[in-house]
Amino acid sequence: PGRFRIAVIPGDGIGKEVAPEGVRVVQAAAHRFGIELDVEWIEWASCDWYAAHGEMMPDDWKHRLQGVDAIYFGAVGWPATVPDHVSLWGSLLKFRREFDQYINLRPVRLFEGVPSPLAGRRPGEIDYLIVRENTEGEYTSAGGILFEGTERELVVQESIYTRIGADRVLSFAFETARARARRRLTVATKSNGVAIAMPWWDRRADDVGRRYPDVAMDKQHIDILSARFVLQPDRFDVVVATNLFGDILSDLGPATTGTIGLAPSANLNPERKHPSLFEPVHGSAPDIAGLGVANPMAMIWSGAMMLDFLTHGTGAGRAAHDAILAAIESVLRDGPRTRDLGGWASTLDVGREIAERV
Amino acid sequence: PGRFRIAVIPGDGIGKEVAPEGVRVVQAAAHRFGIELDVEWIEWASCDWYAAHGEMMPDDWKHRLQGVDAIYFGAVGWPATVPDHVSLWGSLLKFRREFDQYINLRPVRLFEGVPSPLAGRRPGEIDYLIVRENTEGEYTSAGGILFEGTERELVVQESIYTRIGADRVLSFAFETARARARRRLTVATKSNGVAIAMPWWDRRADDVGRRYPDVAMDKQHIDILSARFVLQPDRFDVVVATNLFGDILSDLGPATTGTIGLAPSANLNPERKHPSLFEPVHGSAPDIAGLGVANPMAMIWSGAMMLDFLTHGTGAGRAAHDAILAAIESVLRDGPRTRDLGGWASTLDVGREIAERV
Ligand SMILES: CC(C)[C@H](C(=O)O)[C@@H](O)C(=O)O
Ligand SMILES: CC(C)[C@H](C(=O)O)[C@@H](O)C(=O)O
Repeated sequence: PGRFRIAVIPGDGIGKEVAPEGVRVVQAAAHRFGIELDVEWIEWASCDWYAAHGEMMPDDWKHRLQGVDAIYFGAVGWPATVPDHVSLWGSLLKFRREFDQYINLRPVRLFEGVPSPLAGRRPGEIDYLIVRENTEGEYTSAGGILFEGTERELVVQESIYTRIGADRVLSFAFETARARARRRLTVATKSNGVAIAMPWWDRRADDVGRRYPDVAMDKQHIDILSARFVLQPDRFDVVVATNLFGDILSDLGPATTGTIGLAPSANLNPERKHPSLFEPVHGSAPDIAGLGVANPMAMIWSGAMMLDFLTHGTGAGRAAHDAILAAIESVLRDGPRTRDLGGWASTLDVGREIAERV
Repeated sequence: PGRFRIAVIPGDGIGKEVAPEGVRVVQAAAHRFGIELDVEWIEWASCDWYAAHGEMMPDDWKHRLQGVDAIYFGAVGWPATVPDHVSLWGSLLKFRREFDQYINLRPVRLFEGVPSPLAGRRPGEIDYLIVRENTEGEYTSAGGILFEGTERELVVQESIYTRIGADRVLSFAFETARARARRRLTVATKSNGVAIAMPWWDRRADDVGRRYPDVAMDKQHIDILSARFVLQPDRFDVVVATNLFGDILSDLGPATTGTIGLAPSANLNPERKHPSLFEPVHGSAPDIAGLGVANPMAMIWSGAMMLDFLTHGTGAGRAAHDAILAAIESVLRDGPRTRDLGGWASTLDVGREIAERV
């Protein structure tokens, strides 16, 4: 089924703790399904590296990574020593942009054995997929400060959207919705307030949507949409959003399923011209870093998405993905639990147990 | 205790249904506490008016409203006939800006008798106040579209923040937090992604915060903050946010208390140079408009905030406010309920009952 080169970037904080467990499980699944992985551990793209070198990555980072098939990424950020916008713009956000990983896929699912903070919600009732635009929009360092340091100080922050950028993520979302049973797509917007870009985004959704008459599309303003993630999560199937709105929704959604310690993500360059990147949605979590109590499941599930994407076309990656998901589900039912799930197990305990069950 | 001129703007959809109940209750409370109100009903600032006149408001709207003490506002928006950005920018958002209502206060509270969608949360456990910047930031029509209609189409949307704008809302939030028992202030940010404005916003919070060493301030990125509104709502006391983030949080927060049909808001010009505006957080809700089933409690609670603000300094408005809140709480315990609360009562039934108990 194939041989692939994976760059593992643990990063900072709990990234360094969950990455080894992710690799452990991914290797076990790969082995079982005859997939060969060459794993290379990378210590840069971390705040430790920054402390020693004054930058987040070596100058030839792109060259070094361009040849790998995927990047398996823990988490970056250590605000006590490096401001977040420096560490993130110097690593993760660079990867997303320069490797044109324009799709960020973030599944949200309520599992058996994980009590939802939402009253009375049963497994199966929360099961949707967020498709987030991942390269443009609200995340920019375009803009500037005028009259700096004076009373008249004024800040302009530019969000920048392109037709190419909007259309490709909208098309991807429509295609994804079409392939699912419910064929429903919700478009996050805020066209009543953000008065240039968002009415335009709505028009792009309408235009692209004309090619998908078999998908039921509706647009919801981000404020009420966030409320409905809590009040009516069973309404959602596929949700597509700009970069910032997708960021918010993909922390909120997982929160309603009990823990963000489970939420995975795939930063995809669907054309495979550049490596795609797979990472948990949770960050480096300085508050619990170093304790060995972080939940590795989000990292592990992200690894499952990686195997699936890598071997797209053959059945092996899909089988490996499903085996990992089944192992996670089984451990959630009766295996060791980390703190966020009300247990006392360590990151290592959970990683080993999942690897075992794969 | 005073005599005040109130302009009532019902607006569209359920705005027209909840406004009369709001006025009914506010009048009852005013009467009981010796406050005199001259109420003027205004039919413009609505999509009906737009249909007849081709604009949302008459040209001299500002002149007509400048003399009133407060605007009591239902909801605007009827997307079937007028695009939301046209109706809102032509009315509500104009009021907020041109009357410099730079504080938007949005209390979030879980009441007895209203089951929270969050499992096991008890009244008292969710009780915080969102202070939203209300005049600048992400809500602009600054920017534009380049290469329109072509493949290269590019959209620039500018968010604009000022030091004056940030500092005054931050100061207000610190003052508000200082006056409360817990003295905690959470600052919503996204400085790891939105790379010019948000690091600057963080610096403004630090700067202003130096004047409030007795308030415990922390900054949280909007994504994880949204997750915590669901996972740990008891952590929050006062939350301050820019315009867009405040908008999102103030729909999400009320959703966790069971219904956005309860959430009130006060759009304040604290200097009282211009009229302040009081309105429910819910919008015009076209889906249930005309049925007479909308919950009027958010409108009524907003009216209580209005009386409190108007008579600031005398005890009468505070007493009227508290009497209205007590009546709402009592009806929530054993009175008629609208649909959103699982009942069958009409908007009118609930309004009358609250007025009765005031
Ligand atoms: C760390 C941060 C820059 C990042 C983002 O906002 O995209 C994270 O929150 C995520 O969701 O992947
Ligand atoms: C209707 C809309 C423009 C408005 C806003 O986004 O401010 C509303 O959602 C609110 O929260 O008052």
